[in-house]
Amino acid sequence: MTTMNKQWRLKARPVGEPSADTWEYTESELPTITDGQLLIKIAYLSIDPAMRGWLNDAKSYIEPVQVGDVMRAGTVGEVIDSKHEKFAVGDYVCGHNGVQSYAVSDGTGLYKVDPNLAPLSYYLGVLGMPGMTGYFGLLKTGEPKAGETVVVSGAAGAVGGLVGQIAKIKGCRVVGIAGGSEKCQFLIDELGFDATIDYKNEDVKKALKQTCPDGVDVYFDNVGGDILNDVLTQINLRARIVICGAISQYNNTTPIKGPSNYLSLLVNRARMEGIVVFDNIKEYPTAMKDIAGWIQSGDIKVKDHIVEGIETFPDTLMMLFKGKNFGKLVLKVEG
Amino acid sequence: MTTMNKQWRLKARPVGEPSADTWEYTESELPTITDGQLLIKIAYLSIDPAMRGWLNDAKSYIEPVQVGDVMRAGTVGEVIDSKHEKFAVGDYVCGHNGVQSYAVSDGTGLYKVDPNLAPLSYYLGVLGMPGMTGYFGLLKTGEPKAGETVVVSGAAGAVGGLVGQIAKIKGCRVVGIAGGSEKCQFLIDELGFDATIDYKNEDVKKALKQTCPDGVDVYFDNVGGDILNDVLTQINLRARIVICGAISQYNNTTPIKGPSNYLSLLVNRARMEGIVVFDNIKEYPTAMKDIAGWIQSGDIKVKDHIVEGIETFPDTLMMLFKGKNFGKLVLKVEG
Repeated sequence: MTTMNKQWRLKARPVGEPSADTWEYTESELPTITDGQLLIKIAYLSIDPAMRGWLNDAKSYIEPVQVGDVMRAGTVGEVIDSKHEKFAVGDYVCGHNGVQSYAVSDGTGLYKVDPNLAPLSYYLGVLGMPGMTGYFGLLKTGEPKAGETVVVSGAAGAVGGLVGQIAKIKGCRVVGIAGGSEKCQFLIDELGFDATIDYKNEDVKKALKQTCPDGVDVYFDNVGGDILNDVLTQINLRARIVICGAISQYNNTTPIKGPSNYLSLLVNRARMEGIVVFDNIKEYPTAMKDIAGWIQSGDIKVKDHIVEGIETFPDTLMMLFKGKNFGKLVLKVEG
Repeated sequence: MTTMNKQWRLKARPVGEPSADTWEYTESELPTITDGQLLIKIAYLSIDPAMRGWLNDAKSYIEPVQVGDVMRAGTVGEVIDSKHEKFAVGDYVCGHNGVQSYAVSDGTGLYKVDPNLAPLSYYLGVLGMPGMTGYFGLLKTGEPKAGETVVVSGAAGAVGGLVGQIAKIKGCRVVGIAGGSEKCQFLIDELGFDATIDYKNEDVKKALKQTCPDGVDVYFDNVGGDILNDVLTQINLRARIVICGAISQYNNTTPIKGPSNYLSLLVNRARMEGIVVFDNIKEYPTAMKDIAGWIQSGDIKVKDHIVEGIETFPDTLMMLFKGKNFGKLVLKVEG
């Protein structure tokens, strides 16, 4: 039996939500490698909101995925063949190696990880891109101080859950916005949040007033739209709003909703600042050391949401936009 | 003949644009003063966009003007009677003493100015609140560096004209957005701007591309609305957007237009930050010394737009919102 490489390719750029027409499933023979290359058997794929942005043919912080190409994805896997001096068979490596079961790499953007230190999937979540995003976005741009109130949206997601827990470690009062009572309960019971707002069942503006009686000092925004606009009405003097994402707006076919309450920035001398995780690449080791330490001490709890089978990729991606993931969404290649 | 105090009072809070129904003109006898007070004969009233915000019954950086009260305004005038130990007859003083020809003060918020150093009206403009706003907003929040591109809207107004000239002094390329060819010509010929955009006759987005071939590093926003949104499409990595005002939106009866392109902050790791001039009050003397020096050296040119007669106040205020002022708008009390 020949081993086949299963791949998901971009077939056509979506308008609005990705659909069946967006993707093409292909199988090809296992690639062979030449000098300076290595072959990775991918174990887990990272499923992230940022993927939606990579489908648009627009100037952004990274090149769009081209039609016909294998879809970009963060990956972790095992080196099963190598003609590369820095990587040996049996090494485990992280990189952006695409939605496929096997990948050839020349080592660009690849780094080794230790499967004995943490479950492999953690390297795509709390110790990967989402972890770095939460860590640097909160600490460098949010600048939380002990005693301040930190609000985070998408709080049960990969980035949001970490942001809230780090804010707690820093001595802040933490309020998480998430969809559904199960997620909210989890934030309180498991992650130690002080309060939550269930945006699917509560009036967010009213709930912000109740859960943030002293106002909002830091808002870490993963969702945009009405929630960002509501938080703007409750910010304190010199508040910091970290723009990490806007998942509510990614599939819009109409223009994105701008925050009509942005003049609250003026009244409150507040700032709203965008972040892109890759800017902190040199400091990743520090962040990983901190986060690993907090996991070990029990200050940070990790929740991965693992779906099995690369065949499910299109549906698994849509779970993000429907708020159906509960924790960091990861796709295990083998079902 | 008895001297009368002419006053404009808030009669009813406007919805949308202030109108004849907003204001009540009253005359009263000249007030007498008691111990610790002084009487000011007001010479000039400052007419500023911020006045519109003071009419709304909403939480803001300053208390709203109450219905029935004399309208708040920045003023400069002469002390004509005094039972206050710090102020003597013949002193010239600046303060917020209202839209009236005479005012009683207990000295709160009052400071002396020298009519021999600069024309009195300058103390309401380039050496007053607008001057301080432009100086601190640009230098502390905009953080312009030599060689960067600075764009300013409302460029022919009190704040904008100063912002552009200070940016030139700091070695930046300066592009001003203003309405009409006369204003634009003035910005180039008199104030030394590098380029201008006439928003009344040009496609702002297209014009930004042409006038800012290297993108926008600092945007000083006085207008909000579509222009802010257009600039967001042209910002550079780590751009700074200073939110000083949003004159295009102040008279809205529908919700304010939020900048739908705000995710450009994310892509560009840029920030948008609000400013309120009063936060810098302790540093005003430094700013006034700098600005006075630049006026003396000819690096900064001043253009006041003086309208005569306190009777014209309601119409004069509306000039701001119709873009009819050309330079700092000042109302001379005596016609």
